[in-house]
Amino acid sequence: MLKVSQRGQDMPVSPFRKLGPFAEAARQQGKIVYPLNIGQPDIETPAAAMAAMRTADVRVLGYSHGAGTESYRHKLAAYYQRANLPVAFEDIIVTTGGSEAILFALLTCLNPGDEIIIPEPFYGTYTAFAIAAGVTIVPVTARIEDGFALPPLADFERVITPRTRAVLICNPSNPTGYVYSRAELESILGLCQAHQLYLLSDEAYREFCYDAPYVSALQLPGAAPYVVVLDTISKRYSACGARIGALVTLNQEVYSAAFRFAQMRVSPPGLGMLLAEAAADLPESYFDESKAEYLARRDLTVARLQAMPGVVCPRPGGAFYVLAHLPIDSSDAFGQWLLESFSYENQTLMLSPATGFYHTPGLGRQEVRIAYVLNRSDLAAALTCLEHALREYPGRTTPQPATALDAATRPS
Amino acid sequence: MLKVSQRGQDMPVSPFRKLGPFAEAARQQGKIVYPLNIGQPDIETPAAAMAAMRTADVRVLGYSHGAGTESYRHKLAAYYQRANLPVAFEDIIVTTGGSEAILFALLTCLNPGDEIIIPEPFYGTYTAFAIAAGVTIVPVTARIEDGFALPPLADFERVITPRTRAVLICNPSNPTGYVYSRAELESILGLCQAHQLYLLSDEAYREFCYDAPYVSALQLPGAAPYVVVLDTISKRYSACGARIGALVTLNQEVYSAAFRFAQMRVSPPGLGMLLAEAAADLPESYFDESKAEYLARRDLTVARLQAMPGVVCPRPGGAFYVLAHLPIDSSDAFGQWLLESFSYENQTLMLSPATGFYHTPGLGRQEVRIAYVLNRSDLAAALTCLEHALREYPGRTTPQPATALDAATRPS
Repeated sequence: MLKVSQRGQDMPVSPFRKLGPFAEAARQQGKIVYPLNIGQPDIETPAAAMAAMRTADVRVLGYSHGAGTESYRHKLAAYYQRANLPVAFEDIIVTTGGSEAILFALLTCLNPGDEIIIPEPFYGTYTAFAIAAGVTIVPVTARIEDGFALPPLADFERVITPRTRAVLICNPSNPTGYVYSRAELESILGLCQAHQLYLLSDEAYREFCYDAPYVSALQLPGAAPYVVVLDTISKRYSACGARIGALVTLNQEVYSAAFRFAQMRVSPPGLGMLLAEAAADLPESYFDESKAEYLARRDLTVARLQAMPGVVCPRPGGAFYVLAHLPIDSSDAFGQWLLESFSYENQTLMLSPATGFYHTPGLGRQEVRIAYVLNRSDLAAALTCLEHALREYPGRTTPQPATALDAATRPS
Repeated sequence: MLKVSQRGQDMPVSPFRKLGPFAEAARQQGKIVYPLNIGQPDIETPAAAMAAMRTADVRVLGYSHGAGTESYRHKLAAYYQRANLPVAFEDIIVTTGGSEAILFALLTCLNPGDEIIIPEPFYGTYTAFAIAAGVTIVPVTARIEDGFALPPLADFERVITPRTRAVLICNPSNPTGYVYSRAELESILGLCQAHQLYLLSDEAYREFCYDAPYVSALQLPGAAPYVVVLDTISKRYSACGARIGALVTLNQEVYSAAFRFAQMRVSPPGLGMLLAEAAADLPESYFDESKAEYLARRDLTVARLQAMPGVVCPRPGGAFYVLAHLPIDSSDAFGQWLLESFSYENQTLMLSPATGFYHTPGLGRQEVRIAYVLNRSDLAAALTCLEHALREYPGRTTPQPATALDAATRPS
């Protein structure tokens, strides 16, 4: 009998889309639904970059080099160099979004059945890529009490087996917004050196660091053979739909194998590359404006959440997410209830239950991710909805003792 | 020690790129090199579609639905209906080129270690996708003496094992240009029904049929549960760089699993979709002009090749390739010699050794693929070069007896 593959059956529904039908129904009832569930920035794609793409003299939109056009790779290398990453254009493979960089890295660095350690909570879609690549995710749990800092190295050491091939970090983190310090990066690189593991570093949110300059794992002394940077222009230039990312490594063996995977699909999206090439030319000051906006949104979000009884919200240093503990029985039930059964002044909000970000079953039931991707006025209205919802929600729990969680609310 | 994965090591260098460095060197010596090696059409991307993409009112280039925008899927469904394929918009997943459709189909229909039967010679890159997906290709050899028609069903039956899950056909075929007749499609579908195999049908060249109207496997009675169409706009609208394809199936279980793979990478390229949506609106007559041009090129190519002593060239009904037998010792050596050691009036040509299209070792050593993707004047000049080269090539062999191969030169 015809039957789809086991991996096809195992493939999860995107955790970001589960609540979609409920949001749709709420909107059809006439409710305003604030979408704080997905990392789709509302900032306009840079007009100069769009204009450059639109006016490019393209008559035959042909295949490019499998690693992307040389002209874009040169501009991207210059961008990395300005960000203090020691990257030349030959170290770059332009990919179809950060997604393809993740897939190529897993296919290149791990065999089927090999293990990759990832601090949880993590970007839920890593699970889907791991299933596609046939590799096993081994989580190490970061704690909200520590503001989601890097778990102790001993926790990593404990789960390393002969099948362990790599560690994957997301820095700044989706979903926690945590930014690893140089000392944390050095310690995780040291672990990789000691155990001969690749260090995959997802740097999609590099430009969104609010409290300190960004440090990439690739900048560290001795990083070159170990580190594979997974990158994307999606968030950096609010160009998610362009589907342009990059795999960057100074390890020639990894580059060569990843490039052969890239040749398989001939070339990355050509129109997106034109946009990305122009965006790479934007002045440093381009980020100032969007960063200032996100910083204000972060401060608003964290302040409002911390003021709600029973809510614990670390103050993250980057990305545009917070992961907050709420006094609720089930983040999945709460997320659905917000859309199905609640409204405040005919408004409600959509958030991401954190169960989708933990690999360990049972974790994240009292946590939600909030993406501060709306303008401050909508964001404030959404948080007001949340405040009212937490008073009304039938599954509200007794708040945790404040002392245990106090540490997490200190500015990081 | 750090070591890339076995699949990373196994991943082949693209067979289309192997001769690249030699072509580059020839050009640096000042030679004109006619590129007949790659299926990159020289026809201009439709100006109306480019203009629609350029003028679309896009402020935030955001993620789309994982299966592509509804508006594009509706237009694409209408295109399929005009082509007599019974496809609704819910049956379509827009993919990042035909490449991603191939990958998703393999991941969805086969488990690692499962087998897929593919008539050879076939598009060499299937091998790379099979390695990425961990599946095993089992070739069934089509013969130049038969004009590369579908091999006898008994040849398929002979290689079916308990691990066989699917048959993959490319129709019209890259690299042979052969177009399967309705009877051939019915027989291969019957085989799939009898053995409960998926039938993956790569229809990238659907619009390039010169001698008879196109028949898709999906049009056949009883096809719905079995057939997965792999499609792309790359050749249809000369828009290879847009990276827009589609996976189309009426099998809901396959659709659902493939869609979850599609959600993994969030969405297909947004700018390319704008282009594709406008292209789907082009009138039928759009294809008349490009088809007439390719038809003239085919006839020129086949006539010139058939007139060369010792050359056997079936007259293919579609795509823009011919696969010809040449009186040479090694297509790989000949392809390199053309670039390194030969010129005629300071010109030479680049072609694809057919060894890259056969899975069975040793086959294709006397065959080359020629893509007729240049204007007729360049094409004629390139074929003149080939004619001279076949006289001069030191590895020239005694022509095969004409009788054995005569059948293949009949119009198909």
